[in-house]
Amino acid sequence: MPILNKDMALCISLAARPSNLGTRFHNWLYDELGLNYVYKAFTTTDLPAAIGGVRALGIRGCAISMPFKEDVISLVDRMDPSALAIDSVNTIVNDDGVLTAYNTDYLAVAELIKERSEVAPSSSSVLLRGSGGMAKAVAAAVRDAGFSNVTIVARNEEAGRHLAGLYGFRWQAEPGTSTADLLINVTPLGMAGPDEDVQSFSDEAIAAASLVFDVVALPSETPLIRAARRAGRPVITGAQVAALQAAEQFVLYTGVRPTAEQIRAAGEFSRQPA
Amino acid sequence: MPILNKDMALCISLAARPSNLGTRFHNWLYDELGLNYVYKAFTTTDLPAAIGGVRALGIRGCAISMPFKEDVISLVDRMDPSALAIDSVNTIVNDDGVLTAYNTDYLAVAELIKERSEVAPSSSSVLLRGSGGMAKAVAAAVRDAGFSNVTIVARNEEAGRHLAGLYGFRWQAEPGTSTADLLINVTPLGMAGPDEDVQSFSDEAIAAASLVFDVVALPSETPLIRAARRAGRPVITGAQVAALQAAEQFVLYTGVRPTAEQIRAAGEFSRQPA
Repeated sequence: MPILNKDMALCISLAARPSNLGTRFHNWLYDELGLNYVYKAFTTTDLPAAIGGVRALGIRGCAISMPFKEDVISLVDRMDPSALAIDSVNTIVNDDGVLTAYNTDYLAVAELIKERSEVAPSSSSVLLRGSGGMAKAVAAAVRDAGFSNVTIVARNEEAGRHLAGLYGFRWQAEPGTSTADLLINVTPLGMAGPDEDVQSFSDEAIAAASLVFDVVALPSETPLIRAARRAGRPVITGAQVAALQAAEQFVLYTGVRPTAEQIRAAGEFSRQPA
Repeated sequence: MPILNKDMALCISLAARPSNLGTRFHNWLYDELGLNYVYKAFTTTDLPAAIGGVRALGIRGCAISMPFKEDVISLVDRMDPSALAIDSVNTIVNDDGVLTAYNTDYLAVAELIKERSEVAPSSSSVLLRGSGGMAKAVAAAVRDAGFSNVTIVARNEEAGRHLAGLYGFRWQAEPGTSTADLLINVTPLGMAGPDEDVQSFSDEAIAAASLVFDVVALPSETPLIRAARRAGRPVITGAQVAALQAAEQFVLYTGVRPTAEQIRAAGEFSRQPA
């Protein structure tokens, strides 16, 4: 039985369809680290009133998921550069009634690319497959890391050309026989569901690459990642992105940075059935 | 470690100075009864936004303490008769965004007086000492239980005359040598602090009474209650009011009525140091 107390800081999430992942991830770490915090997922049909409630109740942090990531911008007081870079918010921090918005997906992708700069320096060519919200976060992180030789690959020509235009990148509809030093998949190809067996880049493209990055997290061992591992190529997985973005949220809410092992264990706990 | 989950119902309290009592009382019972609920105290400096947040976040219940009990009336959708009777709210229940306001202090006092109707039927004379918000709840409960021979005793003439006028009662400034069948103290006399040694009614008044009721809960064994017990008079204590009003909140939030023993144990747990 939790001995909950009145002084606990509450962090929440807002999503159209809340999952249990955040609730389990954050509460596990609060307990592990002995922090007087508690976390719970919520949904709402009135985003302005919900954010007003976050401010008025002194709710310390609020994760923002689909479909609220853009609508929430007008409701906060400050935009961190990570959220400004992509006009998309996934994290709000409440400091005594002042709400600052962040995007920890952007922060996590930027950090993981930076960690691999020895195998994929910013002079590398990039094929980035996808044109949705997460593709925008990845494209902005790539641009801000100094990459300029980047091609957006997207069947949706309007979305693809728009995203490429935002950052001065090229666009093409299909990967075809293109190769690049850094391959990045930000589509649902390889995700559990109808496309789970689809490998988002060819074996030939993988053979020519120095780093392979898949944002798909469920499962994180996608056909692309498995093929890259077989070919001996270094990888960045969607599980790494998911864990790191959640850890960045945790640091923003609590000021405490868990160890890599604690983050790994919390992520594992969060994915177990309740 | 609590295995908190996204589907838990959240109940909260709003007070200028939150105590730990509600958080501990309700969470203890949630655990005891295996209910998927969690409770935490809050404060706010923006009551309308806080109540808007209760509605928008689907927070199931909200206890209302000083100084919000009257200001909250304009922010709810429905007033239960218990809150209407005294224009004061201490409990809000959220049914899918529809907020209904109750006053469980009124409900608890009404229930406790009803339970003792054999020793103090509605034909009994009443001396009711006090003229604040809780005195109003008690006066309304007494009036609604059918008592009409009631004298409000209050040094504050304006407040005392006003309260008496609301319910067609008499007013006098001091108890003097007055006696009555039912003695009720709703002042801080006997409460821990500067007035803790003051007995709010005389031994002579107690000797003439058939029931003695003290609303003071900390401590609940006030000089008045101790003197009444010594004189062999039946009593209603502030601890009974506090436990029953909290239990009524619990029933409103969860639909589950704890046993008397569970309420007693939860009350005891709530008063222990955290």
